[in-house]
Amino acid sequence: MTADQLVLQLQALIGADHARAQGDLSAWEEDWRQLAKGKALAVVSPANTAEVAAVVQACVAAKESGLNVSIVPQGGNTGLVLGGTPDDSGLQVVLSLKRMQAVRALDKQNLSITVDAGCILQNLQTIAAAEGLLFPLSLAAEGSCVIGGNLATNAGGTQVVRYGNTRDLCLGLEVVTAKGEIWNGLSGLRKNNTGYDLRHLMIGSEGTLGIITAATMKLYPQPAATTCAWLAVDTLDHAVELLSLAQKHLASGLTGFETMEQDALKLVEKHMPHMRMPIDVTVGNAFVLLEYSDDESEDRARVRLEILLEAAFEAGLLTDGAVAQNLDQAQKMWDIREHITLAQAAEGLHLKHDISVPSSSIPAFVRQAKEALAKALPGARVINFGHLGDGNLHFNVQAPEGENPRAFVDTCQQTAEHAIYDVVASFGGSFSAEHGVGRLKRHDLAHYKEPVALGMMRAIKAALDPLNLLNPHALLPDA
Amino acid sequence: MTADQLVLQLQALIGADHARAQGDLSAWEEDWRQLAKGKALAVVSPANTAEVAAVVQACVAAKESGLNVSIVPQGGNTGLVLGGTPDDSGLQVVLSLKRMQAVRALDKQNLSITVDAGCILQNLQTIAAAEGLLFPLSLAAEGSCVIGGNLATNAGGTQVVRYGNTRDLCLGLEVVTAKGEIWNGLSGLRKNNTGYDLRHLMIGSEGTLGIITAATMKLYPQPAATTCAWLAVDTLDHAVELLSLAQKHLASGLTGFETMEQDALKLVEKHMPHMRMPIDVTVGNAFVLLEYSDDESEDRARVRLEILLEAAFEAGLLTDGAVAQNLDQAQKMWDIREHITLAQAAEGLHLKHDISVPSSSIPAFVRQAKEALAKALPGARVINFGHLGDGNLHFNVQAPEGENPRAFVDTCQQTAEHAIYDVVASFGGSFSAEHGVGRLKRHDLAHYKEPVALGMMRAIKAALDPLNLLNPHALLPDA
Repeated sequence: MTADQLVLQLQALIGADHARAQGDLSAWEEDWRQLAKGKALAVVSPANTAEVAAVVQACVAAKESGLNVSIVPQGGNTGLVLGGTPDDSGLQVVLSLKRMQAVRALDKQNLSITVDAGCILQNLQTIAAAEGLLFPLSLAAEGSCVIGGNLATNAGGTQVVRYGNTRDLCLGLEVVTAKGEIWNGLSGLRKNNTGYDLRHLMIGSEGTLGIITAATMKLYPQPAATTCAWLAVDTLDHAVELLSLAQKHLASGLTGFETMEQDALKLVEKHMPHMRMPIDVTVGNAFVLLEYSDDESEDRARVRLEILLEAAFEAGLLTDGAVAQNLDQAQKMWDIREHITLAQAAEGLHLKHDISVPSSSIPAFVRQAKEALAKALPGARVINFGHLGDGNLHFNVQAPEGENPRAFVDTCQQTAEHAIYDVVASFGGSFSAEHGVGRLKRHDLAHYKEPVALGMMRAIKAALDPLNLLNPHALLPDA
Repeated sequence: MTADQLVLQLQALIGADHARAQGDLSAWEEDWRQLAKGKALAVVSPANTAEVAAVVQACVAAKESGLNVSIVPQGGNTGLVLGGTPDDSGLQVVLSLKRMQAVRALDKQNLSITVDAGCILQNLQTIAAAEGLLFPLSLAAEGSCVIGGNLATNAGGTQVVRYGNTRDLCLGLEVVTAKGEIWNGLSGLRKNNTGYDLRHLMIGSEGTLGIITAATMKLYPQPAATTCAWLAVDTLDHAVELLSLAQKHLASGLTGFETMEQDALKLVEKHMPHMRMPIDVTVGNAFVLLEYSDDESEDRARVRLEILLEAAFEAGLLTDGAVAQNLDQAQKMWDIREHITLAQAAEGLHLKHDISVPSSSIPAFVRQAKEALAKALPGARVINFGHLGDGNLHFNVQAPEGENPRAFVDTCQQTAEHAIYDVVASFGGSFSAEHGVGRLKRHDLAHYKEPVALGMMRAIKAALDPLNLLNPHALLPDA
């Protein structure tokens, strides 16, 4: 079979409008950060699960006939590691789930919702809220990312400290396998011990083991009130001690615990001078954005937070602090946190790292990683912020003052990664806490993953996708 | 190689005292319910992970040489589905983890603890409590079951409504693979997106994919106060509505939500007349044991619970209710709940079922399952109780009044299972919510599991254990 014949077949299966091989396909061929533009054999957008299965079956037949085709499943194309865009071979079919957006069922009593994989995260949040319920997954791309992609990459976000990662919110999946079969693993069950947990195997597998077409997700009662504080600390040691204190005082009411070092906020001040800091950035070497959600009332939320802050001041952990007086002030605190990424972009091209270590190791990790980086790349500037409550830091690196950012990024990426990831590894940490592996970090996986784990991963891939049809250049390094 | 030669080799590897083929081995060969007694080739008790790996390697070599040996990993031998005891072939090596009990690390700031697989669950609870922390997994066998077994079977228990199943409490694993390699996946990380989640694949795989030798588990701050209420309802519909109301009012403070139908409590009254019911059993057709944990104080716990109960009475959901006035009264409520199993045993042999459906489907499921059972086995008595908050019921069946229990169990088991499990399946439920599959429910897995899922499970088993060395007669049905 030729590539042209496959395209005709795909068009016959799901309609010519939804299986395109001509025209400008760059919206699917290029990642949103524009790191790499590939060339797709076709972009297909099936309308439902049966069509997804038909597309996979057609590709299986084509591959068995000798055409070296493969499939790259794509959600909202908001990933950060090139896991959802094709290479430049012209032999990869991009399978977009974006047409599949239906809400299949909402069970208020069971606190669960079943949706198609292409449902936009924000829509899911909105649908839950309309029923007085909470779908807690929340991240910067929520307006365009879709739940299938969140699951395929096990997305993290800002509420992990309370509600866990995407996998912790999932009760069941529907998946089209690499053979083109449909596995109906949708389920509203909280308990089910009947064999291997295929759901958790699929979640985070980045489209390499199956194509997630629908999911049943957990919902939660909405908290009665949510409030925030912006807190200045001298050291990251104090930030970690504050985390422990907050966990003890607020328990599961602690719904956010973000940290930013001073340099990250200075960058926001430089590029977004209209944004007002709750506290002067010189007052602390690091800052914590703490979010507390109370199940009773706004009054209690304020009181509980005040008691925590008194204890923290008494323990000498804080140099200053501001409590949001209303939702608008709380939103402004989150806005600052979320503008660090934009401020970094305005400052110029830079190196992103998404690492995790046990939260108890954060201060030592940051000290050692900065030392290692200073030795390897003198003058390089660390912009360090992230989800301290989960031990997850975006330990990013900008070019030295006055150096050309692009030249820095092009020449220093590997050096920076090795310097930082070696320290990460020495703390038992992860070089990809929430972004995944994709095509971008395959070499890191080859270098840092235990060989025994890598061996089991390869065996599983070969068992479930013997033709190597699904996203073959993502996640697993070439053998 | 002969079986005798293998025994000598195992004795050379880990010491003759710890690799026994002679004498009374029934403590390892028979399950604690005495459903089945097998015959082991040997019982080995390695002292550490390296010894576990050496045992597996020796068995791999023996199997490759033509001896049809296999390995049955065993924890506390408290399982309910014959997953941890050998068959009667005399060709299975029981590998007991009970000598491996060390606490390897406790990280208070990271809220994590790393222990050997043979650590007894109650010890883990006690060690956490001594640090002012909570390890929330709690179940009837906690005095003798071990964490490795809890993980291998993904144990549930009484706190799932708040803290999830055992898998939700696990951050990382150390596993000896079917090849005798050691995978060091121990980790205190809350976020790690670097490839397939082998941890979740191993959890719940009942020793068929690898032998769990150590684990890093989550710890939580201890709640400030815990209190209980014993509530009478007219119908299970009201019990489910009460669950929704409690989730809304108490949010994550709801740490237990058990339900018992009247007949279950009457059985306790009959066989344990010294136990005093908090409310006369004729006042409700079903009863709820609700546990609430508060992060602030005993006073608040009482007030929050009272507000909920007022709302429930106003909504017409309760016919009566009693609130525990102290820890002793709360414990007595839990004692009644936990004595149902003993009362059933005193009443005579009976059929146990461990099913789950979405909690919203519980009332309809119970109605239909009772109808189906009455048709299939007239006079058979349903003793229905369980973890309603998780949609999990122990829908047990006693012989009709006056009939011989053993004769009933021997002749009616399959009929009862089909009657009940067919209704379970029609609600998208599970025939094994928390007990697992083992050797006892393999035929149910063959019958009720989706063929596509079963196919993937078989492919994974063949990929990770190509010699079919690990627990070959548990979980997966013969092909």
